[in-house]
Amino acid sequence: MMPLEVLKHAQDEFLDFNGQGASVIEMSHRSKEYQAVAQQAEQDLRDLLNIPSNYKVLFLQGGGRGQFAAVPLNLLNGSKKADYIVTGAWSKYATKEAKKFGDIRTIEGTETVDGVVKLAPLPEFREDADYVYYCSNETIHGIERFETPKIKSGILINDASSEFLSKPMDVTQFGLVFAGAQKNVAPAGLTIVIVRDDLIGKAAEYCPTIMDYKINADKESMYNTPPTFCWYMAGLVFKWLKQKGGLAVMEQENIAKAAYLYDYLDSTDFYSNNIDPSCRSRMNVPFFLKNEELNDKFLAEAKACGLTTLKGHRDLGGMRASIYNAMPMEGVKALVAFMDKFAAANK
Amino acid sequence: MMPLEVLKHAQDEFLDFNGQGASVIEMSHRSKEYQAVAQQAEQDLRDLLNIPSNYKVLFLQGGGRGQFAAVPLNLLNGSKKADYIVTGAWSKYATKEAKKFGDIRTIEGTETVDGVVKLAPLPEFREDADYVYYCSNETIHGIERFETPKIKSGILINDASSEFLSKPMDVTQFGLVFAGAQKNVAPAGLTIVIVRDDLIGKAAEYCPTIMDYKINADKESMYNTPPTFCWYMAGLVFKWLKQKGGLAVMEQENIAKAAYLYDYLDSTDFYSNNIDPSCRSRMNVPFFLKNEELNDKFLAEAKACGLTTLKGHRDLGGMRASIYNAMPMEGVKALVAFMDKFAAANK
Repeated sequence: MMPLEVLKHAQDEFLDFNGQGASVIEMSHRSKEYQAVAQQAEQDLRDLLNIPSNYKVLFLQGGGRGQFAAVPLNLLNGSKKADYIVTGAWSKYATKEAKKFGDIRTIEGTETVDGVVKLAPLPEFREDADYVYYCSNETIHGIERFETPKIKSGILINDASSEFLSKPMDVTQFGLVFAGAQKNVAPAGLTIVIVRDDLIGKAAEYCPTIMDYKINADKESMYNTPPTFCWYMAGLVFKWLKQKGGLAVMEQENIAKAAYLYDYLDSTDFYSNNIDPSCRSRMNVPFFLKNEELNDKFLAEAKACGLTTLKGHRDLGGMRASIYNAMPMEGVKALVAFMDKFAAANK
Repeated sequence: MMPLEVLKHAQDEFLDFNGQGASVIEMSHRSKEYQAVAQQAEQDLRDLLNIPSNYKVLFLQGGGRGQFAAVPLNLLNGSKKADYIVTGAWSKYATKEAKKFGDIRTIEGTETVDGVVKLAPLPEFREDADYVYYCSNETIHGIERFETPKIKSGILINDASSEFLSKPMDVTQFGLVFAGAQKNVAPAGLTIVIVRDDLIGKAAEYCPTIMDYKINADKESMYNTPPTFCWYMAGLVFKWLKQKGGLAVMEQENIAKAAYLYDYLDSTDFYSNNIDPSCRSRMNVPFFLKNEELNDKFLAEAKACGLTTLKGHRDLGGMRASIYNAMPMEGVKALVAFMDKFAAANK
């Protein structure tokens, strides 16, 4: 879901960007006009997150999955050891990919106690590990880690794909943060990488050049033709976030939206969510109907009410509500109202 | 440049795709509605090029530069030798990238005789080479190879990025053809790969999974979230090409457009193009003013007439007219009329 204002803005100038007589999708990425779009987007993102000047901001192709390879290919350059905290599907995929490239230790990041899933205590990390990796919000499992893991040495890498820009973030805690843009930022096809500049320039010799952070940084993300439309849309979203008041304001909205939905889930036996309140995602809320035979009926009636994409991920089943930045509180209220009506009619 | 009809169509349904109440950029790539968009686009491309069923069609991220790595990472799997024909900047970049991964022989694909650049006779290729690689249209240098190189063994790989869909193509001549979409197909961010299915499944162990053709084929290009908007736009362009009458019709239009421009260039001493007529690109026409001190004036006056992006690539200087499918004959005529007027006023 994208903010309606942003969609309308893009639609209005789709045939004629800024009086250029051409669509933004037709403009050369090297033109003065497009360079201005790209640079303004980067500056607005830097403003939103207070990104220090010793961090590079890259706008790349390849998605989060691309970063699962790019991170070890660039940063597994000392002991070639890294510790990966697994809290759900995405950190698990990242771990599997990293194992192609080095000595990867898997750390179970969650534990289930009395049917409730919560974050597990973290062990000591290997002191000679090149980095420690985690995913701050697991989209499929609906688990969000609100406290940054503490590390004694090495650097911390965060896949923030599905919580990026939902709240303020202290970038200086990380060596690198990346985010596939398709959740809170832009259409699919853009990945944002924020990386400390002293960490780059030591990619493996078999690292594909399009994944080499140093080369992408030196070429200001224009080593290969960037996904120009996605980058432009990201810029519009950054402006929208600034106009809304920034990330602290978004965080309050997101806290309120999530609380409204979880409070309802906890108030009824008809639905359930088995994640401990301390690590419930504010972006992705998986839930289950007690009587799973009603799943299809639930989805069909929800769709008839204009509530779509509620089907849970195929790995988990059940339902999942995605309540990213662009989802207004009214949308959450409409969902809860529907759920409550459905529960009353089907108990 | 995109066809105006296509841009208008996309603009019209930008806020509400197909009555779904959501933009196509908001739809999940796994939704039934988006799957239909993706599959229809593939089918229309198969129709346009008569792609046989033993070829996979992949819609990927990473651009042509990504394929410079993906091709050797997937296909350099026997002798690890490949022969690369260099006819310009893009095949040169591809060669450089491939050298990371195997034993690459560079073959000079052009020669200059009396100041005229033409295709050089090709030597015998290495019989044990895993493949022979070439680029059928060099965007920067304006050189197009109209005859497919003959090979005795191995397979032929073609980077067709900047002539893709400008004319019919016999896909069965190739083991693999790829094309960055940003020339004739869609906004930047999508790369189309057409690959014979018996060639895939033997990627190097250090091949990033997002570059593994087999995995992308098995997942129907949805292993990672695809660039959904670009894929959708590509589908609209494929429909437009079918409505125009297909690629044989496009070829005739492109021949006529290119002839109009080259005929003018050859009729005057004020401008020049030093490519032999046998290999002049129908898509990218580099040309030079005899008096290069007039370059800035030429570009400024052209822009004032609505003729933009005529500046030559920084590696080559001079001017370059891009006359892709979406450029109508009227656009070429307007360019020639301007050039002729400028020549008369400045000789």
